[in-house]
Amino acid sequence: MFNNDKLREECGIFGIWALSGEDIDPIRATHTALYCLQHRGQEACGIAANDRGVINCTKGLGLVSDVFNGENLSKLTGNVVLGHVRYATKADNDHFSAQPIVISHMKGNLAIAHNGMITNAPILRAELEQKGCVFHTRTDGEIIAYLIVAERLNSSSIEEAVQKACARLEGAYSLLVMSPRKLIAVRDPHGFRPLCMGTLDGSPVFSSESCAFNAIGAKLVRDVKPGELILVENGVLRSIDMAINTCRSSLCVFEYVYFARPDSVIDSLSVDLARQRMGEFLADEYPVEADVVIGVPDSGLSAAVGYAKRSGIPYGVGFIKNRYITRTFIQPTQRDRENAVRLKLNAMASEVYGKRVVMVDDSVVRGTTVARIVSLLREAGATEVHMRIASPPFVAPCYYGTDVPDKKMLPAANHSIEEMKNIFGVDSLGFLSMNALEVIAKSCSLDFCTSCFTGDYPVVPKNDGPISKYERKLD
Amino acid sequence: MFNNDKLREECGIFGIWALSGEDIDPIRATHTALYCLQHRGQEACGIAANDRGVINCTKGLGLVSDVFNGENLSKLTGNVVLGHVRYATKADNDHFSAQPIVISHMKGNLAIAHNGMITNAPILRAELEQKGCVFHTRTDGEIIAYLIVAERLNSSSIEEAVQKACARLEGAYSLLVMSPRKLIAVRDPHGFRPLCMGTLDGSPVFSSESCAFNAIGAKLVRDVKPGELILVENGVLRSIDMAINTCRSSLCVFEYVYFARPDSVIDSLSVDLARQRMGEFLADEYPVEADVVIGVPDSGLSAAVGYAKRSGIPYGVGFIKNRYITRTFIQPTQRDRENAVRLKLNAMASEVYGKRVVMVDDSVVRGTTVARIVSLLREAGATEVHMRIASPPFVAPCYYGTDVPDKKMLPAANHSIEEMKNIFGVDSLGFLSMNALEVIAKSCSLDFCTSCFTGDYPVVPKNDGPISKYERKLD
Amino acid sequence: MFNNDKLREECGIFGIWALSGEDIDPIRATHTALYCLQHRGQEACGIAANDRGVINCTKGLGLVSDVFNGENLSKLTGNVVLGHVRYATKADNDHFSAQPIVISHMKGNLAIAHNGMITNAPILRAELEQKGCVFHTRTDGEIIAYLIVAERLNSSSIEEAVQKACARLEGAYSLLVMSPRKLIAVRDPHGFRPLCMGTLDGSPVFSSESCAFNAIGAKLVRDVKPGELILVENGVLRSIDMAINTCRSSLCVFEYVYFARPDSVIDSLSVDLARQRMGEFLADEYPVEADVVIGVPDSGLSAAVGYAKRSGIPYGVGFIKNRYITRTFIQPTQRDRENAVRLKLNAMASEVYGKRVVMVDDSVVRGTTVARIVSLLREAGATEVHMRIASPPFVAPCYYGTDVPDKKMLPAANHSIEEMKNIFGVDSLGFLSMNALEVIAKSCSLDFCTSCFTGDYPVVPKNDGPISKYERKLD
Amino acid sequence: MFNNDKLREECGIFGIWALSGEDIDPIRATHTALYCLQHRGQEACGIAANDRGVINCTKGLGLVSDVFNGENLSKLTGNVVLGHVRYATKADNDHFSAQPIVISHMKGNLAIAHNGMITNAPILRAELEQKGCVFHTRTDGEIIAYLIVAERLNSSSIEEAVQKACARLEGAYSLLVMSPRKLIAVRDPHGFRPLCMGTLDGSPVFSSESCAFNAIGAKLVRDVKPGELILVENGVLRSIDMAINTCRSSLCVFEYVYFARPDSVIDSLSVDLARQRMGEFLADEYPVEADVVIGVPDSGLSAAVGYAKRSGIPYGVGFIKNRYITRTFIQPTQRDRENAVRLKLNAMASEVYGKRVVMVDDSVVRGTTVARIVSLLREAGATEVHMRIASPPFVAPCYYGTDVPDKKMLPAANHSIEEMKNIFGVDSLGFLSMNALEVIAKSCSLDFCTSCFTGDYPVVPKNDGPISKYERKLD
Repeated sequence: MFNNDKLREECGIFGIWALSGEDIDPIRATHTALYCLQHRGQEACGIAANDRGVINCTKGLGLVSDVFNGENLSKLTGNVVLGHVRYATKADNDHFSAQPIVISHMKGNLAIAHNGMITNAPILRAELEQKGCVFHTRTDGEIIAYLIVAERLNSSSIEEAVQKACARLEGAYSLLVMSPRKLIAVRDPHGFRPLCMGTLDGSPVFSSESCAFNAIGAKLVRDVKPGELILVENGVLRSIDMAINTCRSSLCVFEYVYFARPDSVIDSLSVDLARQRMGEFLADEYPVEADVVIGVPDSGLSAAVGYAKRSGIPYGVGFIKNRYITRTFIQPTQRDRENAVRLKLNAMASEVYGKRVVMVDDSVVRGTTVARIVSLLREAGATEVHMRIASPPFVAPCYYGTDVPDKKMLPAANHSIEEMKNIFGVDSLGFLSMNALEVIAKSCSLDFCTSCFTGDYPVVPKNDGPISKYERKLD
Repeated sequence: MFNNDKLREECGIFGIWALSGEDIDPIRATHTALYCLQHRGQEACGIAANDRGVINCTKGLGLVSDVFNGENLSKLTGNVVLGHVRYATKADNDHFSAQPIVISHMKGNLAIAHNGMITNAPILRAELEQKGCVFHTRTDGEIIAYLIVAERLNSSSIEEAVQKACARLEGAYSLLVMSPRKLIAVRDPHGFRPLCMGTLDGSPVFSSESCAFNAIGAKLVRDVKPGELILVENGVLRSIDMAINTCRSSLCVFEYVYFARPDSVIDSLSVDLARQRMGEFLADEYPVEADVVIGVPDSGLSAAVGYAKRSGIPYGVGFIKNRYITRTFIQPTQRDRENAVRLKLNAMASEVYGKRVVMVDDSVVRGTTVARIVSLLREAGATEVHMRIASPPFVAPCYYGTDVPDKKMLPAANHSIEEMKNIFGVDSLGFLSMNALEVIAKSCSLDFCTSCFTGDYPVVPKNDGPISKYERKLD
Repeated sequence: MFNNDKLREECGIFGIWALSGEDIDPIRATHTALYCLQHRGQEACGIAANDRGVINCTKGLGLVSDVFNGENLSKLTGNVVLGHVRYATKADNDHFSAQPIVISHMKGNLAIAHNGMITNAPILRAELEQKGCVFHTRTDGEIIAYLIVAERLNSSSIEEAVQKACARLEGAYSLLVMSPRKLIAVRDPHGFRPLCMGTLDGSPVFSSESCAFNAIGAKLVRDVKPGELILVENGVLRSIDMAINTCRSSLCVFEYVYFARPDSVIDSLSVDLARQRMGEFLADEYPVEADVVIGVPDSGLSAAVGYAKRSGIPYGVGFIKNRYITRTFIQPTQRDRENAVRLKLNAMASEVYGKRVVMVDDSVVRGTTVARIVSLLREAGATEVHMRIASPPFVAPCYYGTDVPDKKMLPAANHSIEEMKNIFGVDSLGFLSMNALEVIAKSCSLDFCTSCFTGDYPVVPKNDGPISKYERKLD
Repeated sequence: MFNNDKLREECGIFGIWALSGEDIDPIRATHTALYCLQHRGQEACGIAANDRGVINCTKGLGLVSDVFNGENLSKLTGNVVLGHVRYATKADNDHFSAQPIVISHMKGNLAIAHNGMITNAPILRAELEQKGCVFHTRTDGEIIAYLIVAERLNSSSIEEAVQKACARLEGAYSLLVMSPRKLIAVRDPHGFRPLCMGTLDGSPVFSSESCAFNAIGAKLVRDVKPGELILVENGVLRSIDMAINTCRSSLCVFEYVYFARPDSVIDSLSVDLARQRMGEFLADEYPVEADVVIGVPDSGLSAAVGYAKRSGIPYGVGFIKNRYITRTFIQPTQRDRENAVRLKLNAMASEVYGKRVVMVDDSVVRGTTVARIVSLLREAGATEVHMRIASPPFVAPCYYGTDVPDKKMLPAANHSIEEMKNIFGVDSLGFLSMNALEVIAKSCSLDFCTSCFTGDYPVVPKNDGPISKYERKLD
């Protein structure tokens, strides 16, 4: 519900190769698509457009509505276009780290848009620096770009260079790469981050999430497969198996839990449906006698609907969220700080007064505002509050592209269910079982990465893990 | 759902008299309250603060988050504070028409915040001009201020002047007036627009809607009564019956239907509950065999919940609304215009595919996007779409403070239910009966103005009605 | 040289009645003219345009280049246009006090642009308030507008109303008034502030200074005479003698000394020539053996040229002024404060090193930076610094439209020439004699107001003078 | 006078190593210095600060007053600071090309500020790209940075790497380089661009021009010599002769003619004095009977003073320049375009009416507005206009850091003096002789580059010259 209580995704990416002759405005389509991917990154965004080999790029800090206007959009021209929205760490929060990254090298220009996190980035960067490479930013995207350029010198094509570069990368990457004459989409062999392809009246489109296709009138064709490289040249698609060896695929389960928009479909599984099923399992695993089921907006709503349907307890709208609170909201003083939760979220007395309430949320990561939200319900007259979490206890940090809280910040890593029940002030507390998650996952063709719930990582980061990585960046 | 399909409210007002000794920041409380009233007016806002008789005011065009920042907030000081958000007509959309209006006259300063529309404004303004009054804006608020000043010369107190001025006013007004030493709240004798009072640790507060009280930690005490004037002096409240003769009270029913936030309570009736009951009545009046009940966000959700509860058909989340679309969204080109609805609203295939869907919305005013919304559901796989409207057919314009569409723009005024069914492309269509509305209204102590559904007006506008009024303003 | 050392003018005004059929863009001409009057007021500006009776106005805080852009200029239409630039006192420094003031009253709309200061403003305002008038600003312009409206009710024409209103005004006013069908220019009977008329290919134009005519390609015709009202109707001019009794005209001598741009001509006397003659008189009255004559930029340059010509001592460029320092320059810390003068002004060692320097400035009002400027010359190697001031000692405050320093702030009112010589650190110091000023003034048809040099006021302010006036405005 | 008529300089640079213990604010000093160098580049600026090895940088498009404010200045900390102002070509006019450039490589961070133009840039860039280097901008500064990094890998120190890199560079460069522990100042062996060093209470400072030292209270020590590298480590200076072979030094003569501020001293010669002497030579070479000598502001004023002193003809202020015209001035329409010169410059009739005028300007490059300026004088009543240009005819483009007009754009390259006299509409026309320039130059220890007057280039650009260089950048 509140950003600082949740994980943050790092990026959303979009690309299009507009066929000539079609009545398509690829700049406009990209701009619209970024509005739909905005939930994946709200701190910077950019669009790069390839007009017959000349790549121009407009990017900046802020929301899509902050960065783009009629004037700067109209200056972008070309039929192959990349877009990017990003969440930025403090160290990278500047104009220069916004993506797409556009560079120029011996064989021409290159634009790159990246979603993910490279676990061997420090090693790769050190190697590149030893060869004399010079870095302007602290982004993984720049490392990937430099690897591609380095391989390009010994490759007969850009797609060969991308493949060789990917063979060096460990960790999570969904990539879009634009050269003067080609557009390439790549997904890492684990498939940590989603990437799907579609068609807009025959023109190939790629997106982190399929909800962007709906908005521009495109059709979802399928997901880019883990380890697959899709090359677009002259508007024609070719699939290349990068043949990078991995034990198993590891799609981030948090895409279903929280990150993705519910109207997206990932790996043939509707995100909304997955969340509803989580709610249904919760209803089976933690039934309770109650009068109403409510969700914490927005990410808890689908699971609440599932819980309500399965349990037969009526669904209700339990909270009103204030949609006008933005990043510019002025930091409150001490007393007002307590009111900050009230301002963002108001409990609906009409729905909960005198009732036994089942409150469903998608996950508890830091859990810093849970107790206040529960007390809003109590003040509004709820007689009992039964909290149901549509994911297992979050016990371990993530290395693959999300904003990693320290293990000490994770209540589920430090407290028993009973202790958490008391901390949050609820009458009962239930987390989805790993077993339920696995059953749901069987609807997918892929295996999931569930390391945040298990501590079992598909790829162990080289070089001392994420914290030291960030620290290294500070000097 | 879409602003241009809905009525627009004209204003939200808020006032506070902060008792000394309490740990209250009245500027901050007002600022927070305006965030909660933002849905009532998004084109201009302002705060006026009375610091021992000196009234300072900051106001401007845009959202609360556009106009106010830490710097200009910190320059406002004082313990009695007024706030205002407004919807502006084209003619008034300038800095100078933003409210609160602050003026200076013989007996001192005066600040005024107004929600409503004065039906005899043209006559009053002409009279004032004939006496030599000079107008700087085209707002009703300035007319009211001038009337108060004119009466003040022959009155022993500001509250007496306000009463005399109100006796001259016809139409809708909920007013907050701040003089150097007093704060006055007034509601017109019909009670067209809501106005409630509360207490923040003993300090009196007033607001268009009670949801603002929740956000600042205040308690709702009661509504200001139609025809009541509440005087605050030295922090002490006094209620004065203005004794203005009227046949019956006429609270705008659209406050329950659409305007108010569902978490507000007006005249002791929860807006959410009223809407749920509208949904329940709809379920009784227009039952249908279906698989899921969905609401059109955001104003159709409460009624959909009510319909689902009553009918036993499961509630589902049928649409995802894009929260990042703002006024700055660039006007789309022809083809993209069709996509504009898709961008703002995406139908959830996971919830509607292969299902018979009951789609509940709060009202149909202009109805310009209904057919597109329905076709989103069809494309997403809905096999049947049964549309239920939680209010009666909207057949007549409004003279009391809402953005009035011409009767020619109202489908319900020009088509039969059957015709509308075909125009909207739905399988069945049901509007709430007037009878149901009357039953719900009995929960309230007040009578409603339902002229938009009946064409029967509590106060007939002098001087040729609203259209000529606006035209008059243009010269 | 430095604003805080100098007097500040209150306003510049411009008006045009564009004849149809001519290839004139009156909005553009007004915009250009305001750039030329910018030195008369840099804190707010505005343009009001009359399009067949409908008056629209754009105004705001800041320079002409801050407030106007292609977009808002293009929205202004009409053939009769007023412009205004203003210096604002602290109390009035808000959007609402910017001019032109546009109001609406019984007989139609009115726009007004005012340069000057009304000495009986407190009395007039009190009278108007007693009649019920309501004030939105603290400007004299609003008082004048209300007086005109009040008289309009008993007058057969707007020009009659303006005359009657002017008969009530005391003090300084150069006015432009625009009604739906007329444009009126007025100058107070003392002629304190300048106002001239010209022709742009036959279209009448009015301006505070003639330099604006040069920029738009118009020709100066003559000054509006003290006590004269010029009426423009259908593009035709008519001169009306307002027949307001006054002993003698009193054009502000500081217009020649400092306010006006040197390329302006006031009352047939070139401002540059007047300043050169002041320099020539100084050379006669205070001769000195020296090697170079320099002026303090920009207002001391003309007099320095005159001193050089008359004395035969070569003229040199003694200081370079940094043109990039604007109001947004960040306030320096203690040590840097000493450097602030250095940053704005650099002494030219190449011109003064090892030389005996005559430094000419236009006036000494507060004199707060004189000593630092002199020490810049000493550091740059000047062996002697002889300071010559092209006006008499400034000993008394002003009531007619300039920013009045308290008498205690005026060095010439508190120190002998010898004492000032020591305070400023100069080797000799000479002020222009009153006699010289009188001789120069004989080139004009008008008498001058020289009260700042003599303490002898043409109009004694009612109601305790300027200081109490400002204080009154604060409550 | 008008930017589009003049050459444009590419950059101004400033650096400081603030000794601890001194009461110096190096950020503030840099900020102030950039205000004094603003005339050298007005399209982008930046400051990079080294706080114990961590380099932070704020930069952006616009003037110093646009880019910096109290908030972002306060976030910069450190005792070693670089600043940069730049003129940008169209291709480079983006955020990413602003300087200082800050990069990170194997041996740490590096910030670089560059003034000049590298004539073998295309070759160097191609070589670097072949090694795999990746470019983010089109600036020469990035090429220099990459060369330094490449050499750093095989060097024992940063200063050695800078020397090796400089040995590869051809053309013009005055450089400031900041590593985690060192500050390096370098001037190319021809000394095309100025660079001087000073001391601020013992702390070493470097600046493109000495006028910045005056403003911050520093003292000029001497110029950095052509081919000299100055290393600052722990606040201690060391001079290193880079021993790069060159036939002769070639300080750009246009620094004296136009670029530098007159209060700067370059190579011990005061710019103002050089310009005055040019005026004196002109008086000898092209004497004329006249009544007044005027300069075209601002760059023609010093030479006009010199002409007046030498000829005995009185100096006068002939033009008033409007200081409020900025880049944001809205493009005028056809008719107004003719007025654009009038708006920027007004001829002073009081000084020229009925007189024979000597009009002195510093140079004629494109000459597009000369005729209009002359006609302003004629309109103001000048009976004769004798134009004197304080530099020889400009006949050849420049390759070393100025905005190069095509030879076809240069009137002196295409017309005889007699033809130009007619084109400009003057009664006589004289250009300074090359001989005079050489005599003046003898005051300096350096030789000058006068290729723009002779077509004789000290360094012939590799790779087809400047035009093709820019074209190459476009793909």
